[in-house]
Amino acid sequence: MAKEIRISGAGGQGIILAGLILAEAAGIFEGKEVIQAQDYGGAMRGGAARSDVLIGEEGEEIDYPVVTSADILIAMTQEAAERWTSTVKKGGIILYDSTNVSRWPSSVARIYSVPFTNIAREDLGREVGANVIAIGVIQKLTRIVSEDALKQALLQRVPHGTEELNMKALEIGFRVGQEVSPVTNNE
Amino acid sequence: MAKEIRISGAGGQGIILAGLILAEAAGIFEGKEVIQAQDYGGAMRGGAARSDVLIGEEGEEIDYPVVTSADILIAMTQEAAERWTSTVKKGGIILYDSTNVSRWPSSVARIYSVPFTNIAREDLGREVGANVIAIGVIQKLTRIVSEDALKQALLQRVPHGTEELNMKALEIGFRVGQEVSPVTNNE
Repeated sequence: MAKEIRISGAGGQGIILAGLILAEAAGIFEGKEVIQAQDYGGAMRGGAARSDVLIGEEGEEIDYPVVTSADILIAMTQEAAERWTSTVKKGGIILYDSTNVSRWPSSVARIYSVPFTNIAREDLGREVGANVIAIGVIQKLTRIVSEDALKQALLQRVPHGTEELNMKALEIGFRVGQEVSPVTNNE
Repeated sequence: MAKEIRISGAGGQGIILAGLILAEAAGIFEGKEVIQAQDYGGAMRGGAARSDVLIGEEGEEIDYPVVTSADILIAMTQEAAERWTSTVKKGGIILYDSTNVSRWPSSVARIYSVPFTNIAREDLGREVGANVIAIGVIQKLTRIVSEDALKQALLQRVPHGTEELNMKALEIGFRVGQEVSPVTNNE
């Protein structure tokens, strides 16, 4: 079964870029089967943003190109947390950006709470690296892609001139991912 | 029914960027329902790249988030032309980049042949604008999105510092799109 990952938040948080980096790490640099998709328009309210990544093993066909029961959710805003938490399966992983998410909807998943936006602001001097920190954390928590593939995909995908900043964000994510513990929830 | 658009070519031709600009023009700046998706891995051979954009009217639900019978195909390489031409429906539109596509598979669609890459090289001084020229042409041929929405989406999506170059590419596309005529095919 393909792993289903949803990255969600608001426009301007680099949600789509994060999805592309993760998708290209697995699809281009590891040769896995990957579908990456996003919706726009009325299906997304207001300035909401969402990027879905489905990752199958090499040669594994992905039946249905939509996240139906997520293995991994990153929610960078309270709205995203409220909208998508219930889509994560039992045993799945949720990462909340605790800078923005203060109330946790009930869930059967394993929850991690990390102040991505605050970390980006303090350690990078700009909030927009929060998305890349988050995918670095995901890598350490799940090994869904290798560290090296993620670095290669990042360098190929981010705008010229931002490679160093984004690589620093990814390294921060790796470090945080090694240290962070799940928060017990209502289980 | 949602309009199904497929942009195809090779890695490095900005296929995914072109799909994002088109999707965001329709979804963010015109409020239409849009799904944008791409595959990676074994599903795509070698360095092939493909971006699908499905555009429904405001409030129209898009049943199945995959291009099954394309209304519009952009093929920037011979390989892409051979792979995807047959997926375009009768009455649909195909745009070949004639810089790279010299043999046309048989088709029931209306075919346009434009040397996007050559135009980009000569008028912009770099080949990578070919993708943006192509979506400018699509706009004029189909009015699938407005000129203005496409400009706004482009400015928001392209890397900082490349706005002027990309806007010039789009304007070239609009101009070419107003002048180009379909090539009669085996109909």
